Amino acid sequence: MGKYPYQNPDLTIRQRVADLLGRMTIAEKVGQVNQHLYGWECYEKQADGSVRLTDKFKEHVAWGGGLGALYGLFRADPWSQVGFDNGIAPKDSWRLVNQVQEYVMSQSRWQIPALIVEECPHGHQGLGGVSYPTNLGCGNTFNTELMAESSHLMAQELAAKGVHLALVSTLDLAKDPRWGRTEECFGEDPILAAKMSEAVVKGFQGTLITENQAYLDQTVAEINKQPGQIGVVLKHCIAQGEALGGHNSGTVTIGGREFNDVYRPLLHSTRNAVGVMAAYNDVDGVPCHINGELFQTIMRKEMGYQGIVMADGVALDRLGDVFDRQIDGAAAALKAGVDLSLWDQTYLTIQEAIASNLASEADLDVACGRVLGIKFLLGLFEQPFVEDPGAAFDELMTASQAMNLKVAAESLTLVKNDGLLPLSQNLNKIAVVGPAADGLYELLGDYTAPQDPQLAECTIFHQVAKAFPNAEVVYAQGCEVRNLVDQDAKMAEAVALCQDADGIVLVLGGSSARNFDMEFLSNGAVSSKGINMDSGENVDVASLSLGGRQLELLEALAATGKPIVSVMIQGRPYDIQRVEELSQAVLVGWFPGQQGGAAIAGTLAGDFNPSGRLGVSYPLNANQLPVYYYQRAASKQDNYYDQSGAPLHEFGFGLSYTKFSYDYLHVTADSDTITVKVSVTNRGTYAGSESVLLFVRLLGGSVIQRHKLLKDFIKVTLEPGETRELTLHLTPQQLTYTDSDRQLKPAVGCRVLVGNLEEEIFFTK
Amino acid sequence: MGKYPYQNPDLTIRQRVADLLGRMTIAEKVGQVNQHLYGWECYEKQADGSVRLTDKFKEHVAWGGGLGALYGLFRADPWSQVGFDNGIAPKDSWRLVNQVQEYVMSQSRWQIPALIVEECPHGHQGLGGVSYPTNLGCGNTFNTELMAESSHLMAQELAAKGVHLALVSTLDLAKDPRWGRTEECFGEDPILAAKMSEAVVKGFQGTLITENQAYLDQTVAEINKQPGQIGVVLKHCIAQGEALGGHNSGTVTIGGREFNDVYRPLLHSTRNAVGVMAAYNDVDGVPCHINGELFQTIMRKEMGYQGIVMADGVALDRLGDVFDRQIDGAAAALKAGVDLSLWDQTYLTIQEAIASNLASEADLDVACGRVLGIKFLLGLFEQPFVEDPGAAFDELMTASQAMNLKVAAESLTLVKNDGLLPLSQNLNKIAVVGPAADGLYELLGDYTAPQDPQLAECTIFHQVAKAFPNAEVVYAQGCEVRNLVDQDAKMAEAVALCQDADGIVLVLGGSSARNFDMEFLSNGAVSSKGINMDSGENVDVASLSLGGRQLELLEALAATGKPIVSVMIQGRPYDIQRVEELSQAVLVGWFPGQQGGAAIAGTLAGDFNPSGRLGVSYPLNANQLPVYYYQRAASKQDNYYDQSGAPLHEFGFGLSYTKFSYDYLHVTADSDTITVKVSVTNRGTYAGSESVLLFVRLLGGSVIQRHKLLKDFIKVTLEPGETRELTLHLTPQQLTYTDSDRQLKPAVGCRVLVGNLEEEIFFTK
Repeated sequence: MGKYPYQNPDLTIRQRVADLLGRMTIAEKVGQVNQHLYGWECYEKQADGSVRLTDKFKEHVAWGGGLGALYGLFRADPWSQVGFDNGIAPKDSWRLVNQVQEYVMSQSRWQIPALIVEECPHGHQGLGGVSYPTNLGCGNTFNTELMAESSHLMAQELAAKGVHLALVSTLDLAKDPRWGRTEECFGEDPILAAKMSEAVVKGFQGTLITENQAYLDQTVAEINKQPGQIGVVLKHCIAQGEALGGHNSGTVTIGGREFNDVYRPLLHSTRNAVGVMAAYNDVDGVPCHINGELFQTIMRKEMGYQGIVMADGVALDRLGDVFDRQIDGAAAALKAGVDLSLWDQTYLTIQEAIASNLASEADLDVACGRVLGIKFLLGLFEQPFVEDPGAAFDELMTASQAMNLKVAAESLTLVKNDGLLPLSQNLNKIAVVGPAADGLYELLGDYTAPQDPQLAECTIFHQVAKAFPNAEVVYAQGCEVRNLVDQDAKMAEAVALCQDADGIVLVLGGSSARNFDMEFLSNGAVSSKGINMDSGENVDVASLSLGGRQLELLEALAATGKPIVSVMIQGRPYDIQRVEELSQAVLVGWFPGQQGGAAIAGTLAGDFNPSGRLGVSYPLNANQLPVYYYQRAASKQDNYYDQSGAPLHEFGFGLSYTKFSYDYLHVTADSDTITVKVSVTNRGTYAGSESVLLFVRLLGGSVIQRHKLLKDFIKVTLEPGETRELTLHLTPQQLTYTDSDRQLKPAVGCRVLVGNLEEEIFFTK
Repeated sequence: MGKYPYQNPDLTIRQRVADLLGRMTIAEKVGQVNQHLYGWECYEKQADGSVRLTDKFKEHVAWGGGLGALYGLFRADPWSQVGFDNGIAPKDSWRLVNQVQEYVMSQSRWQIPALIVEECPHGHQGLGGVSYPTNLGCGNTFNTELMAESSHLMAQELAAKGVHLALVSTLDLAKDPRWGRTEECFGEDPILAAKMSEAVVKGFQGTLITENQAYLDQTVAEINKQPGQIGVVLKHCIAQGEALGGHNSGTVTIGGREFNDVYRPLLHSTRNAVGVMAAYNDVDGVPCHINGELFQTIMRKEMGYQGIVMADGVALDRLGDVFDRQIDGAAAALKAGVDLSLWDQTYLTIQEAIASNLASEADLDVACGRVLGIKFLLGLFEQPFVEDPGAAFDELMTASQAMNLKVAAESLTLVKNDGLLPLSQNLNKIAVVGPAADGLYELLGDYTAPQDPQLAECTIFHQVAKAFPNAEVVYAQGCEVRNLVDQDAKMAEAVALCQDADGIVLVLGGSSARNFDMEFLSNGAVSSKGINMDSGENVDVASLSLGGRQLELLEALAATGKPIVSVMIQGRPYDIQRVEELSQAVLVGWFPGQQGGAAIAGTLAGDFNPSGRLGVSYPLNANQLPVYYYQRAASKQDNYYDQSGAPLHEFGFGLSYTKFSYDYLHVTADSDTITVKVSVTNRGTYAGSESVLLFVRLLGGSVIQRHKLLKDFIKVTLEPGETRELTLHLTPQQLTYTDSDRQLKPAVGCRVLVGNLEEEIFFTK
């Protein structure tokens, strides 16, 4: 124990923060609320394998009298120009963290350690990181337990590397599939996203922060942090998926009632998170980064949120959209409750903003106090250094990939099956065709590190070959994802290959794969990276038509008369009307991660029974947007003159190899609970899992209520013939809406909709 | 003068209304706030030419102890099944009004006359009505004087027929071209719509209601109503063009700041109107028909609105979206300030609602008092009957068609001209081709009555023939608007026709034409009416591609190598990218009205110099929606991976046969006025008109301001070489926005943008 009260673990975190704050200069406090550096620029691997900290890093630490947080020390991708040659091997990560931490603490008068922060949207974006399905696939699992378990494995992986905070996208809603970040969303539904967010928090953090317990009033011992628990920063706060036109970080025009009905339940799901990240967008004109009502009033005051608010990358500098001077943006963000910067210049000016009386030292203390608070919470003052994970790390990787396969399998959603699936083991020849059919990167989402060459056999082609040992399994690409040049030979090869096949597995869709080859060739042309990359951050599309010559490939293969199972690998719902017409079965795989090939092959073979249900209303095309299901049920012209207004598939749609029936629905209510009992039976011959979705249509009020709203879901696994009776509860709080007078009110009752059954019920008085 | 105070013209209207209300029963008051009947069901033409009032009419008058208002006595169209055989000739209209009025007054204990209400979205929807360009075209004129003049001619036409209230669409904004009612909007811009709305009010009403003068405190003599002035009901209140997906009357999610910035200026433009019509849609969940904040607080209290609020057709019954019982809807609408029904059952239940204590008689008195108030205002109690207009009516029709031609000519917008236009008079043969090239209905908007066969030569083909007397002008349809069946022969005929032409006038686009032939054949199939009708109310489209085989026709004609001028006749901006590629000139004509053919022919011949400027941001296609120009200037990804995010043409774009230059911009400011001086010169060889658009970018505040906002415009006509210096003024009130604290605030200054010039200025302190 050190000599100062803040070093005394017997004091509460609140006491320790207060003591430490009292000792710090403004400059030191400003240092704590800045996360200015790109982590990969802070080190250089030496010829002898050792790692040197850069001057850039040291200068910045000197500037802040320490370091608040360090982003992306292990980030590896074309943007960071980090790969296997110059990056840090997973097993060496702990050592670099210790080296950084030792330096930072040595430069801090108070020996304050830095927060090590990493991207983890679907697994760690570092070399060797386990890459899981993107959230758009995870959402289709409707399996919160699986999400918590996989999140805990990610947390263990990051903890072993010395990471304290994982940045995870859980809060964005996929309301406009043109948006490039659609793949990062669990789906369009706020309750699906909220329950998944809670699972992520639980998986990463365990009980680090719990409701109705101010962590600041606990001691570090009382927090009782377990190994493998780290903090999670949920992103983004909030409503980023509402941007007009699907433009990334575009303006959002929704009103207060829409905001409350959709985003309050989602914001509520963050209440135990160590952090949230503010969103780039505005809401009805006010940038989230200066939205004090959002962070201070709704989240902290009304919902009891205790964590920090982190800025998004250079988002504070984008406050130039509002303010001429960075000091004005800095002051506004500080007052709005943004506690920690990211890469921007703006928070470097806080001292100047205070000197200009735009903000006070007290404002800075609040932010700095919160950053220090979570450092205490995460045990950094007691355990700033991390130990060599040793062989346990290999075991963790093995367990993680097993989990990864489970998640991938449950994320697959069968949207058409004329009986072709599962494929027979008696097929003599199976042709696997398509842009991503033998690709690994193409199975992964954006924010992915270079992949270990050892994973080369994870592709769909190789895994199908493994799953059908009796068959001759052959491969041709057929065409690329988007490239229109030099495709004729590919196409001809694929058609020839399929002429004597018994079945075709046609892999279509999009790609978030960064082109590492071209990057490593140092051609430097940013635009050339994207020739076949049509998804991911900043890659918005106008049309939802499949890119390149994919539809032509489909038509050509269909003309062979061979049965086709199409597998969609995509980061957004592309138009698959023609795909469904020409295929006997269609499996939507989203970006399924490193085990996606195995999951798909296993599903085709019948080893896995698909249980995914769509987390988005699957549109016909971009012309009919928006089609999210929970629009208000206004009397309107539903259809267009030239096409239906309804989506191709409803939210929650998904087929199985077996058949489930909902045999009765009993709904009862007293004054504060609605109890829903429903019976589900597996009527088919395969064991299978069914996500039981509980929707309600709210009753009462003087606003037009929404068609329906998801309120709860449970996933059950049933043997053939097995029946399960489920009981779910709804409280008035879950049935809240914002009325015409702008007040939050509980509905007087609701229509409960489960499967094909529904019943109307009212709370008793 | 009668014996009661309400009959005393020396009393103020307020006193007369109060006296009359005090005498009436609840049932009689309910009768006054109902506009239940379809007017065309109230009469039957007899074999001898006389007209009999129907039992249905008489029963309803008996029910209400009189009649509040009668909608559509002269409406003629397929829906009403009224045509020349069973409808009322324009010159006989006055007689039927007198017959109706006599009956109504005889059945009212207080001899209260009824309001006669007619549709007039682009001229009167009655037999023989003058049909002007739809507002989407009128908006392109940017000519408020012309709008006021044409409105006054419409008012005179309706007054001569005995009509008291004209329903005119002026308030809807064309923010999503998928919406079928886009044609009814002046454009996407609120200030364009507001200034046009004010012109319409001025044209119809003169000074019937003036700002800062409560008409209720005037006597009828003080009102000083002039012949040819009638009341106008502006529709729709409000934000109907914001519906998600462009679905007609769909739900609207915009927030309070968006609402204030966009719709307050528009609402302000209604302040002198005798009436407004509530819109079908909700705004952020609250249906307009029960939005007391809109009608009572914003319009009446804050803006001094004095007129009535009329419901839209059966809109009150659609409150079933919110309330189970009609009496609840009736009470809510009454309290929200809806004064007069339209066709619904709901307002028939007001007495029951009062008996159930859901509303009070005082609530009813307010609505009934307003309806009575405008009856006094319009002089109905002094002059309930109308005189035979006689020969003056023919003169009015002649003057109206002359005005119609002027409006049509100014509505045309030239968007491409490689030098082909104006067409030479030396051409030997001109081929006029296209679905609407020889159609009259196809030139007219929705809400149009059957057309007089005498107008058959108003088509583009006939008018081009007239405008080019030296040329052989030939016609072939080429293809229909949407129909895909049996088009080969049409197409072949058109191509053959063009082989030896010197130039092709290709008329493409959409159609709002109701199919009267099929209707009169009584086939009864509603859906069959629309085979070539792709615009108008309830005819929303998903794709903005041109319908049918029009693009194929374009390609085939372009392949002849003959120069093409394409003329777009359309109710929304269709995708014209390919049209612009393959045509040497493109003229956008919207639906230009009965004189559209003459205006187009005259423009092609150079008799008119096109001066229209686009009132909408012209999109590339539906995939990039929305593209309206006044979105907030948020830092975002502007472009899509697969296409630009920018529209094909900006709001305000339009070419001329001459060239205008903006040579200087001087902006000065004191504490309450910004003065903008700008010099415009005609640098070409043609006389021409230029709409000078004054945009601003607001400065200050803690919200993201919009890219720019139109604040004023002036249209000037300049001879070749002529220069005009214009002076415009901006007040702080015009530069108001809603800040992050939800308060309306004047900007501290603005960037002024006129033509290619801009300057930043601040109000002095």
